Amino acid sequence: MTDCQGDVEGASTPMELYEKLSEQGEKVRSLKSAKADKTEVDAAVQLLLKLKMDYKQMTGQDYKAGCPPSENDAELNNGPAADGAGEDDTVDPWTVSTTNAKGVDYDKLIVRFGSSKIDQELVDRVEKVCGQKPHRFLRRGVFFSHRDMHQVLDAYEKHKSFYLYTGRGPSSEAMHVGHLIPFIFTKWLQDVFDIPLVIQLTDDEKYLWKDLTVEECHRFAIENAKDIIACGFDINKTFIFSDLDYMGSSPEFYRNVVKIQKHVTFNQVKGIFGFTDSDCIGKISFPAIQAAPSFSNSFPHVFGSRKDIQCLIPCAIDQDPYFRMTRDVAPRIGYPKPALLHSTFFPALQGAQTKMSASDANSSIFLTDTPKQIKNKINKHAFSGGKDTVEEHRKYGGNADVDVSFMYLTFFLEDDEQLEKIRQDYTSGALLTGELKKILIETLQPMIAQHQERRKQVTDELVKQFMTPRPLNFNL
Amino acid sequence: MTDCQGDVEGASTPMELYEKLSEQGEKVRSLKSAKADKTEVDAAVQLLLKLKMDYKQMTGQDYKAGCPPSENDAELNNGPAADGAGEDDTVDPWTVSTTNAKGVDYDKLIVRFGSSKIDQELVDRVEKVCGQKPHRFLRRGVFFSHRDMHQVLDAYEKHKSFYLYTGRGPSSEAMHVGHLIPFIFTKWLQDVFDIPLVIQLTDDEKYLWKDLTVEECHRFAIENAKDIIACGFDINKTFIFSDLDYMGSSPEFYRNVVKIQKHVTFNQVKGIFGFTDSDCIGKISFPAIQAAPSFSNSFPHVFGSRKDIQCLIPCAIDQDPYFRMTRDVAPRIGYPKPALLHSTFFPALQGAQTKMSASDANSSIFLTDTPKQIKNKINKHAFSGGKDTVEEHRKYGGNADVDVSFMYLTFFLEDDEQLEKIRQDYTSGALLTGELKKILIETLQPMIAQHQERRKQVTDELVKQFMTPRPLNFNL
Repeated sequence: MTDCQGDVEGASTPMELYEKLSEQGEKVRSLKSAKADKTEVDAAVQLLLKLKMDYKQMTGQDYKAGCPPSENDAELNNGPAADGAGEDDTVDPWTVSTTNAKGVDYDKLIVRFGSSKIDQELVDRVEKVCGQKPHRFLRRGVFFSHRDMHQVLDAYEKHKSFYLYTGRGPSSEAMHVGHLIPFIFTKWLQDVFDIPLVIQLTDDEKYLWKDLTVEECHRFAIENAKDIIACGFDINKTFIFSDLDYMGSSPEFYRNVVKIQKHVTFNQVKGIFGFTDSDCIGKISFPAIQAAPSFSNSFPHVFGSRKDIQCLIPCAIDQDPYFRMTRDVAPRIGYPKPALLHSTFFPALQGAQTKMSASDANSSIFLTDTPKQIKNKINKHAFSGGKDTVEEHRKYGGNADVDVSFMYLTFFLEDDEQLEKIRQDYTSGALLTGELKKILIETLQPMIAQHQERRKQVTDELVKQFMTPRPLNFNL
Repeated sequence: MTDCQGDVEGASTPMELYEKLSEQGEKVRSLKSAKADKTEVDAAVQLLLKLKMDYKQMTGQDYKAGCPPSENDAELNNGPAADGAGEDDTVDPWTVSTTNAKGVDYDKLIVRFGSSKIDQELVDRVEKVCGQKPHRFLRRGVFFSHRDMHQVLDAYEKHKSFYLYTGRGPSSEAMHVGHLIPFIFTKWLQDVFDIPLVIQLTDDEKYLWKDLTVEECHRFAIENAKDIIACGFDINKTFIFSDLDYMGSSPEFYRNVVKIQKHVTFNQVKGIFGFTDSDCIGKISFPAIQAAPSFSNSFPHVFGSRKDIQCLIPCAIDQDPYFRMTRDVAPRIGYPKPALLHSTFFPALQGAQTKMSASDANSSIFLTDTPKQIKNKINKHAFSGGKDTVEEHRKYGGNADVDVSFMYLTFFLEDDEQLEKIRQDYTSGALLTGELKKILIETLQPMIAQHQERRKQVTDELVKQFMTPRPLNFNL
């Protein structure tokens, strides 16, 4: 319809456009009743039609006189489809990109998504409540945004516990170091709060989105489970499940899926996820499946029929659209809203403009890489914030903010003082790019080797145990 | 958008409208490039916009220059949403209505749906293959339409067996006699062909469509199962399942649901079922759940991993849209298309213009009605084709074609000769309306009483047995 559509002059929100439409409808009616000149009526009708199409495009809904766009929809729609083209950053479950070498502007994202910043006060409070030094991901703003974390801590202080839920879409056998971020942090949360954890492997989602068979996706789920188990989760407090298996073994889980599906319209998922009429019905209904583990009675073997146990979801910020939807539905089906902790993205070796990709071997350090591969990839592909020559670098210093090796160290180097010294030395020019890369290589090589060692010890039998619905040990 | 929309002048098919649109687009372009008078351009653009909206409404798709509506969509779209307003009959899974007192025009429906008529040749062939007198529903055209029944019989003659699948949406505890039609016929098919049968109770569907809780819908499923079991199905060859239970106990069933969901777009279900953007995502994806039992590997406890066993679905014609969709998907996921046998609708007591309604107690004879209630309902509410006075009736005769009591007898009176004599006597005026009603009352009273007697003997334990996934006895 491009040939007939222009910009929506001056209307930047659904409500403004709605008001313009109401006015224009009024105008058409008065012109018609005044039996005005046909040319004038035609022009007014044409504008009305155009406004209606714009409205439909902006809100995903037909304009109805007397029915303004609801606040609720506005909140739900701050996902990708409703983002103006003026924004530089694209963040949704399938695309993360920015034109800024420092990466996505996370402060703006907090405003757009309507979440809250994890500030020093919250970090201090986590430390106080759990009695442990905050994880480096909290100290350094890797987990930078949250929803309702204070509520979770309030309740925990009153001995009302919660459970953790995180997940992974198993799109291939190979996981890279970036995929570990939510799991490393979730393990820490499990340890310091001593709470149960459920991990969803969305093999059904990968089947729906990718050119893969059901069998391949399920196999990837099992392989990925091994890497996840190798992160050190407590088998007595952790249930890992493949959707393809668990949906078919838990009527309670399916009941929650159907309840959610009844309370979300196509208009809503269109607004939140940018689905179109050409998308398959599996994609359209999938968000309910990612939402369901947010409710404790989806796991009767763990929580019995209790539906009041709050869920805390650590995940990358691109997954937030699913949980905005979940939080909107929760009170309408009588469940508590899940709380969230959002992480930044782990940058590709080539730079922070995009997430790492499991399909490009050189964009990432894989968990299967040898020490030599790790060394070569970092030396060859890690985007450098250093200057072109040693002389210039010594003189002007490097830019740690865009240097991927430095960014990786913020994720994996535990020692705060050492990290700060590296930053200062790199910025001053005392530390050269090759030397910085060497520190990263020497940090990652043993880390990956240890992961591989632990993964080797993960037997099929152990995977089966983790993935069997069963009671977990905990006190709620 | 009613104030700006008119009729689509002279365009009755998507293709005609597409051509009009292409023409109009061309016209706008040439006016613009010729720098024509603004009024003229505006009027042409306005018409173009209107045509685009009509096109979207008719096809569920946005008009794209150079992309005519596909043949495939046209075939799939011969359901309700694509039916022209000129048709008198509305037939879809939620609405059946006609302005004709004789009921829906089934010959026209066969043409619209693209199915085949069950002619005398097919009835004779069924008799030959199964070696039994055809059921009265076949002899009398109650089952009047089919898809691929010859293929099923060809294979059966070569000792390649098939299985039966039928179902019910449990929207209330109460079932009426009309609900028995598919089950009576399916039982006969099971007996004469000696084959396994699966019966789906779509309690999830009823939850999605009605203002009911999950628990209520599930309870209705169990109650309805008792009435179905009372029809006399062989427990060794019959598996009855509630979706809410079975989805959560069979990963194989869910895998087929997801496979189907991947291969059907929102555009398609919009065209087939008339869904809109305001419908919940559960409704939108539900058709895949009604489709899945058409494939034998959805029941591994019965068929193992075999996916090549053909399915035959006896159902009322209003369910055909689900199975048109299923047949479209089947070859694309490597499964055989299900064959179908379609029945006419069982008329309401008030007349054949609509189906009976479980929510209007006086529109139907319920399976729980007492002999007295049956008598009163028929005498009071059964629409009569008789004349106003006995004198006129004797003189001009009654009209059996619109007489509901006579219609009911065609469903339930086994003796062909007796039925024909009743028709003749009523048409000639020898049989009065009261006498006709008396015959029906005396036919239904013992039939319902016997059903109630059999239902009483259906214990909870027996229901549980029927509804437990387990091997069935048969030779395929």
